[in-house]
Amino acid sequence: MNDPDMTTPRYAAPTLLSFATRLLAAAGLNSGKSDAVASILVEGDLMGHSTHGLTLLGPYLRELEAGTMRRDGEPDVLQDRPAAVTWDGRRLPGPWLVLQAMALATERAKQCGTGSVVIRRSHHIACLAAYLKRATDAGLLMFLTCSDANSASVAPFGGLDPVFTPNPLSAGIPTPALPILVDISTSSTTNGLTNRLHQEGGRLPAPWLIDGHGQPSDDPAVLFNEPKGTILPLGGMDSGHKGYGLSLLVEALTGGLAGQGRADPREGWGATVFLQIIDPAAFGGSEAFTRQTGAIVQQCHASRPAHAGQQVRMPGERGLRLALEQQRSGVRLYPSILPSLEPWARKLGVDLPMPTA
Amino acid sequence: MNDPDMTTPRYAAPTLLSFATRLLAAAGLNSGKSDAVASILVEGDLMGHSTHGLTLLGPYLRELEAGTMRRDGEPDVLQDRPAAVTWDGRRLPGPWLVLQAMALATERAKQCGTGSVVIRRSHHIACLAAYLKRATDAGLLMFLTCSDANSASVAPFGGLDPVFTPNPLSAGIPTPALPILVDISTSSTTNGLTNRLHQEGGRLPAPWLIDGHGQPSDDPAVLFNEPKGTILPLGGMDSGHKGYGLSLLVEALTGGLAGQGRADPREGWGATVFLQIIDPAAFGGSEAFTRQTGAIVQQCHASRPAHAGQQVRMPGERGLRLALEQQRSGVRLYPSILPSLEPWARKLGVDLPMPTA
Repeated sequence: MNDPDMTTPRYAAPTLLSFATRLLAAAGLNSGKSDAVASILVEGDLMGHSTHGLTLLGPYLRELEAGTMRRDGEPDVLQDRPAAVTWDGRRLPGPWLVLQAMALATERAKQCGTGSVVIRRSHHIACLAAYLKRATDAGLLMFLTCSDANSASVAPFGGLDPVFTPNPLSAGIPTPALPILVDISTSSTTNGLTNRLHQEGGRLPAPWLIDGHGQPSDDPAVLFNEPKGTILPLGGMDSGHKGYGLSLLVEALTGGLAGQGRADPREGWGATVFLQIIDPAAFGGSEAFTRQTGAIVQQCHASRPAHAGQQVRMPGERGLRLALEQQRSGVRLYPSILPSLEPWARKLGVDLPMPTA
Repeated sequence: MNDPDMTTPRYAAPTLLSFATRLLAAAGLNSGKSDAVASILVEGDLMGHSTHGLTLLGPYLRELEAGTMRRDGEPDVLQDRPAAVTWDGRRLPGPWLVLQAMALATERAKQCGTGSVVIRRSHHIACLAAYLKRATDAGLLMFLTCSDANSASVAPFGGLDPVFTPNPLSAGIPTPALPILVDISTSSTTNGLTNRLHQEGGRLPAPWLIDGHGQPSDDPAVLFNEPKGTILPLGGMDSGHKGYGLSLLVEALTGGLAGQGRADPREGWGATVFLQIIDPAAFGGSEAFTRQTGAIVQQCHASRPAHAGQQVRMPGERGLRLALEQQRSGVRLYPSILPSLEPWARKLGVDLPMPTA
């Protein structure tokens, strides 16, 4: 959510979508897959999640080129129960797999009340929040989480050696108006933000890291200097047992249910995914559901602000409003994004997008 | 987890169980219900959750006497789908309802892969961790959360007016050895702990509260003095948007799916419950699941301690070991608990338990 400044050029969302789709197609993805990946990445930038939007396209293209992101085929079905399906994603593009899994989980939720899909060996799935609105637009509650057993930057609470990825956890909650979109890491911060701040010589807003000697720190450099530090679990030094517990829950839902993860040899950058679609109509009813969530939004908005002039917001509210504004007026890309894609555009013979006038 | 000191007398767990069961029976619960409530309360004390064990028995007896906890009958089934059942708990005792719901959810999980039960109008459900081991002992992953729309002590992030209860979230995760039992509030702390510290004149370990003027505080008195403060969401001043997001997810799963909650008139102390049983056998397989969770436990335990001599623990590990020790050697009750039950024992004609020799 680090918004570039107001002088940054804007790009029409459809222009960015077409640019990303053409790059992915040129890299060998068929139209279903290139459309899915491009739309999820652009959705990330539309909502201002600049570390999880088109900034990932270069790395994805590199993985396609290396064959470590697979281009062709379908996931293997490992198990299929009425409300629970398990896939081997065969390292296919994550956004495409997740969108396919959402469609299947939605079908099952309509039949059973809930539908879960677990995907082992997905490739990276980008911005979790980008998926949620598709479910909430259909009146469905969605829960989505992932981990990547191929890397570790977060230590268990009280430890120095990393075991977990930031293990994000997200949920889309329908309301009578804008949906609530929760998208948080169960760690204090993410690899994306610390890497970027380290390159830029910045500091974190709070001591979200612990150095290799066990001291809390706000300096991203502690993740890179020896002895290497780690990212603290959500809750930091005084409540990190809570983020640690949530990280473990994410591991259980992803690597555990997938039956592939931290007990196995590393395969390279990827994701293990758990998603669940919950149909409120199968419980207390859709209208009863949004009557409650609407009341809660109203009560949160009515809560007097702790800091004068800063009204309480719902999770996702800023991103959804930003997306609406940027859909109308064009997307302000984080400054490093297009330069990172220039070599790919040249190599794959795709024209760079032109800013809006 | 405030352990009473070593001079505190010990009581045999079966003695406490029988004492609690007889009090509840004398207050009018049949044997199924009194056994369920007593065993969950004693389980809380066994694991050291002293704010959520027998300390609740007095208040429960008061509610039974007042008729605000209902003695007789069964929950009403509001909706029944293959993997999703919704009950009206009719203000019956929470621990009994939750144990019944777990049995039903387990059946459905065996058929469908997952089984969820939502309960509106349950009475209070005590210690969430007390339920989890029954699921993990059967090799099942369990997720349990609740809220109480009848009270509010946690403000949305950035706000001063409370909207939420501490909205606990718990999960039981089978491993090849001790299960992982996650039981956290999505707020920085709980009403139970702040009430107790306020009575004792103590302070919290960190600024987990915000006073009525928007200043962070570690003094429980700010919850009682005008203008009243609130409990901060998990993550506190710098990351409270994450706890806030989790609180909203809990509200959606409980009041939202139950179709009864913060949009409705208050009914008095109670709980709205969401629980889900997930059968690993329906996904990647039970053995594959514990192979992963076992590896994670091993990796966490192997993480070098941040503080010399303090080995990394798994969530629930201390409580489970304490329960085993207290089952053998007797339970050290928090000092205020038995005195709070003396008037009830007298009134209901039940002998007070005798400590072990």
